[in-house]
Amino acid sequence: MADDKLSRVRDAVGAHEGFPKPGIVFRDIFPVLRNPSVFNDLNDLIYEAAKAVPGVECIVGLDSRGFLFGPILALKLNVPFVPVRKKGKLPGAVERVSYTLEYGSDEFEVQKDSVSKGQKVLIIDDLLATGGTMKAACQLMEKLEADVVLCLVIIELTDLGGRKKLTAPFKTLLEYEGE
Amino acid sequence: MADDKLSRVRDAVGAHEGFPKPGIVFRDIFPVLRNPSVFNDLNDLIYEAAKAVPGVECIVGLDSRGFLFGPILALKLNVPFVPVRKKGKLPGAVERVSYTLEYGSDEFEVQKDSVSKGQKVLIIDDLLATGGTMKAACQLMEKLEADVVLCLVIIELTDLGGRKKLTAPFKTLLEYEGE
Repeated sequence: MADDKLSRVRDAVGAHEGFPKPGIVFRDIFPVLRNPSVFNDLNDLIYEAAKAVPGVECIVGLDSRGFLFGPILALKLNVPFVPVRKKGKLPGAVERVSYTLEYGSDEFEVQKDSVSKGQKVLIIDDLLATGGTMKAACQLMEKLEADVVLCLVIIELTDLGGRKKLTAPFKTLLEYEGE
Repeated sequence: MADDKLSRVRDAVGAHEGFPKPGIVFRDIFPVLRNPSVFNDLNDLIYEAAKAVPGVECIVGLDSRGFLFGPILALKLNVPFVPVRKKGKLPGAVERVSYTLEYGSDEFEVQKDSVSKGQKVLIIDDLLATGGTMKAACQLMEKLEADVVLCLVIIELTDLGGRKKLTAPFKTLLEYEGE
C-alpha cells in the first residue's frame, strides 16, 4: 500500500535535464501537486514518516517549498507550524544563522518565540541536495534549544552527500543518485 | 459561526510596528499557523470563500506565503495546485510577466503546461498590499488563457488600493486600514 503510494509519487515527480544549468537534472515536485490523488498519497506518506517518530510537537518548514507540505502535516498532527525564512522576512525578535551556497552565502531566520526549549521538532523540506539549508535549520533549532527529532524530505540527491552534514535523524521518501 | 472563526483568526494575526521599516505595521499571518485550532478556522473560511464561486478547477498559489494555504484548499476541492514563482525557479517552458516593486521590478513565472485554456482558476495569497504581485499573477493566467474566477487573500491593506488594480473578482477575509 505504502509502496504503491510511493510509486505513484515517484512517477509524478518531474525530471528536467540541464536546469538550472548544464549537467544538472532538476527534480520537480510540482507535478505531484497537480494531481490531487497523488498529492494525497504523498501527504499520507509524509504523515506515516512523522508518526513513526513519537511525540512530534512542532513542524518547522523551510521557505518556500517546505511551506507546501509542512502546514498540511502540522494540521494532521494537530501541532503548530513554524517557518524558517530568508533574512529580513520575519518580524519580531529572530534567531539567525548563515549558510553556504554554491556562490557566496545566505542567512536563515526563525522567530524566537515560535519554538520553545525542549520542544520536539520535525523539520520538513521538499529536497535535500548539499544539505546546507537543512543543516542551517537544525542550527536555528539548537539556538532555540529545541530537540530536532527528524529532518524529513521527499527527495534526496544522494550523490551530494547532504545527509552527512546532519546530526539529527534524517529520512527521505525518494532517493536519486548518479544524475 | 463563520464570524466566530473570523474573530479568532483576526485575534491571532500579529502586528509589528516599524517592520520592515518605520511607518509600516507588518501584519504577520504566522501566529495563526502556530495554533492548529485557529489555523483550521482559517482554512474553513478559505474553503467557504472558494465554494461560493462555482466550478473552481485549479488553485494557483503565489510564492511563498500562498504556498501555506493553496495546497490545503486544492486538496479540499480535489483540484490541482499550481505555483507562481519568481523568475528562474521553475523548470520547463514558462510564461513570464514583470511587475513593479517599491524599488525596481521583478518577474513572475508559471509553467506553461500547468494550467489549460479556459480553466477556472482561483489565485490565493496571504496578503494584498499594492496589488502588484496579484495583478502579475492574473496577467500570467491571461497569457495561458485561463479564467480567473477569484483572487482570494486573507489580509487586505485597504489604504494601498491594490484591489483597484485587479479586473478579476476579488475577496479578502480581513481588512486593515489607516495604519
